[in-house]
Amino acid sequence: MIKAVYPGSFDPITIGHVDIIKRAASLVDELHVVVADNLTKKKTFTTQERIDMLKLVLKDIPNIVVSSTTDLVIRYAENNNIGILVRGLRNIQDYENEYALYQFNRNLNKEIETIILFPSSKNHFVSSSGIKELVYHHADISLYVPHEIIDLVETKFHKKDK
Amino acid sequence: MIKAVYPGSFDPITIGHVDIIKRAASLVDELHVVVADNLTKKKTFTTQERIDMLKLVLKDIPNIVVSSTTDLVIRYAENNNIGILVRGLRNIQDYENEYALYQFNRNLNKEIETIILFPSSKNHFVSSSGIKELVYHHADISLYVPHEIIDLVETKFHKKDK
Amino acid sequence: MIKAVYPGSFDPITIGHVDIIKRAASLVDELHVVVADNLTKKKTFTTQERIDMLKLVLKDIPNIVVSSTTDLVIRYAENNNIGILVRGLRNIQDYENEYALYQFNRNLNKEIETIILFPSSKNHFVSSSGIKELVYHHADISLYVPHEIIDLVETKFHKKDK
Amino acid sequence: MIKAVYPGSFDPITIGHVDIIKRAASLVDELHVVVADNLTKKKTFTTQERIDMLKLVLKDIPNIVVSSTTDLVIRYAENNNIGILVRGLRNIQDYENEYALYQFNRNLNKEIETIILFPSSKNHFVSSSGIKELVYHHADISLYVPHEIIDLVETKFHKKDK
Amino acid sequence: MIKAVYPGSFDPITIGHVDIIKRAASLVDELHVVVADNLTKKKTFTTQERIDMLKLVLKDIPNIVVSSTTDLVIRYAENNNIGILVRGLRNIQDYENEYALYQFNRNLNKEIETIILFPSSKNHFVSSSGIKELVYHHADISLYVPHEIIDLVETKFHKKDK
Amino acid sequence: MIKAVYPGSFDPITIGHVDIIKRAASLVDELHVVVADNLTKKKTFTTQERIDMLKLVLKDIPNIVVSSTTDLVIRYAENNNIGILVRGLRNIQDYENEYALYQFNRNLNKEIETIILFPSSKNHFVSSSGIKELVYHHADISLYVPHEIIDLVETKFHKKDK
Repeated sequence: MIKAVYPGSFDPITIGHVDIIKRAASLVDELHVVVADNLTKKKTFTTQERIDMLKLVLKDIPNIVVSSTTDLVIRYAENNNIGILVRGLRNIQDYENEYALYQFNRNLNKEIETIILFPSSKNHFVSSSGIKELVYHHADISLYVPHEIIDLVETKFHKKDK
Repeated sequence: MIKAVYPGSFDPITIGHVDIIKRAASLVDELHVVVADNLTKKKTFTTQERIDMLKLVLKDIPNIVVSSTTDLVIRYAENNNIGILVRGLRNIQDYENEYALYQFNRNLNKEIETIILFPSSKNHFVSSSGIKELVYHHADISLYVPHEIIDLVETKFHKKDK
Repeated sequence: MIKAVYPGSFDPITIGHVDIIKRAASLVDELHVVVADNLTKKKTFTTQERIDMLKLVLKDIPNIVVSSTTDLVIRYAENNNIGILVRGLRNIQDYENEYALYQFNRNLNKEIETIILFPSSKNHFVSSSGIKELVYHHADISLYVPHEIIDLVETKFHKKDK
Repeated sequence: MIKAVYPGSFDPITIGHVDIIKRAASLVDELHVVVADNLTKKKTFTTQERIDMLKLVLKDIPNIVVSSTTDLVIRYAENNNIGILVRGLRNIQDYENEYALYQFNRNLNKEIETIILFPSSKNHFVSSSGIKELVYHHADISLYVPHEIIDLVETKFHKKDK
Repeated sequence: MIKAVYPGSFDPITIGHVDIIKRAASLVDELHVVVADNLTKKKTFTTQERIDMLKLVLKDIPNIVVSSTTDLVIRYAENNNIGILVRGLRNIQDYENEYALYQFNRNLNKEIETIILFPSSKNHFVSSSGIKELVYHHADISLYVPHEIIDLVETKFHKKDK
Repeated sequence: MIKAVYPGSFDPITIGHVDIIKRAASLVDELHVVVADNLTKKKTFTTQERIDMLKLVLKDIPNIVVSSTTDLVIRYAENNNIGILVRGLRNIQDYENEYALYQFNRNLNKEIETIILFPSSKNHFVSSSGIKELVYHHADISLYVPHEIIDLVETKFHKKDK
């Protein structure tokens, strides 16, 4: 069985993430979508909230495992017998970071291969931070996040009763 | 009457901003120069200080309106019947951010067009953060900020009496 | 009257060009769309063929003038009393070329302003050379060129009777 | 059976290509390495020479099929029941070209997924054109091309008897 | 006597820094390696810790002076009669920052020349922040930092007794 | 004695080249400015014409040697006991090419160090090809090429008697 892991902050999950997830899931037998934070980025949503959003949005894709880790992603892959690491590459700003990450990971374990997918969505410019800017200003985010989590994201920012 | 808006942090205004403002002002009947902050950037100057600096520096350009907003810039444009959004593009680091901003704005209101100007100044590398680094170290900033605000900027950092 | 010029090879015109042209035309009173070649690029279509395709595709936009020049674009602008030069900026490969062009033009005539538009089309990756590659291999190009010229482009490559 | 295609000019094959090929071959059941030229690039080696070099270099990797096509790569994939297209991404110059190619291919057939691999080799800067420059000047190319083809490449340039 | 300065955060020193330092030291009579922070970056190690690490790692290179400054690097150069400023350039993300820094420095003192070295190490992707991410997760950093400081770096993060 | 080589096409020499040459010459005892072509670029001026232009323009800088080579630049350096190779880096398009060149050269001879200079000129966008475009259209090139060669360059293109 071919298994892959797609790690990310998912703070929150965007339609860009969903695009990568669906395409990656169709390439392998089992895809682990894993909430994994690095040291520097501050998060808006708790790990549990991000897991819950992922499960809600991805519930209809059968070969998905939603999870989280506080360890290096490559160790999560080792512990779960996963041989492929999936990453999206939205633009040139991402490039250098992704290349460094790839090399660090390769040096940690040469048996785990990184494959890169380009965004297919016409909204390839979408980022979690851009979405938060919109939500903060009460603007419509329905073009950028899965419809299942729109309320959750808006409530997080505005604490309004719904 | 053709109206445009040029939003920015202006923290503080640089000669690069002034270059864009003068050229944009010559293209339209009325140019709104608007202090508009996003969520993440911390500011050195208060909104009022930045408005005051803009007014001081731009007082001789007749078709300029200096203002501020806590809303999305596109809403400011809508509320003021403005059809053109002006942005500068200094370098490739700016490119991806500006392209995403453009797309977000276009999805908010397709009637408002974004036009980009390249910097004409020979000091196209100038950034507000670079200037602050110089001021902090008591270095000369007269090449990079309009002369009217040099004292204001230096005082903000060094609280010295003048 | 505000007049602008949008120069290009248009070899052939793509939906990306049409997008820029429509948006630029809505910003000014008269937009000159001008076939203008540089020294190095070899062309597939003759100047006349490219003018004819432009006229065919743009015939319903009232404030468009289709033309060509063998001179520098900035001189065409001067000769036609045009104060604005419009350029598209598809990606980072374009950036350095466009910035150099802007500076060369600015040194030729500081009164003529260059404004840049980002592509709004979801097919922002489209280039004339990519389209030719598709045509050469008898692939469908209807997503990338205006429907009025599909036959013309295909015939140019395949000399087939239609 | 999972099948993938890795197209390229291979003019000549470099150690960078071999790196991508070995890693891609380990991810799938069958990897087609296919000589495929675009319209513009002039080639140093004939298609047959390039096929022969590929076969020589890759003869010990069991799940490789060496081939060529004059058609679009996506059609080769369709004709051979291949669902994955593999591309390397050496640097930022490659990025825009690869992204456009990906989008063109996706529009041709959404069922065929493109996956990108970063170069793992420490010689990630190696290009076929750089190698030709070295060969032309009688410099050592053994760091950059598989040892099996060094003589062939040198002979091509210098017509010397060996 | 030709003197140069190589400033940096060195938080901590990496094998990439050591590569640049060794090559720069071989080009001049005296190389000052200077801990110099800018306003924004938060540091993991104190200035004294970073000086101590530099001294430990560089103790066998005879023409090195390890130092620190809270002033602008260009003033340190002036005060120490240094005419050359050395900078590394790892990737395109570095490019714009380094170019702006170069121009700011040139405007401060045209007599002090900036020379850029590309990384020669095969681990050119290495950054201090990437190393900290590894250390935080108890991963091996011996590929990326000089062996003399591995213990120091690990202890800083994990306060473990050794 | 510290010797360096600055190779280039110089087709023709621009003010950008002169800037790099003057600054490099001030860093070393002897600077060789060497006409060196690669395989692909077609030249407008003959090697002798380019040497003559270099000699004319650089005649007042005492520590310059003007020369040419049909060999690899690194071999020219070896044959002339030169330990430093100087390159300019105008923009991000140059970056990848220069980095690859640096690595190829380093593998040929690790004793010869490459140092990079950023352009100091405000006309950092200037390229030989841009200048040729201007000359071809009879536009003024005096901002971009040394005054000593303006006539030579214009005559080459227009065969006019002067």
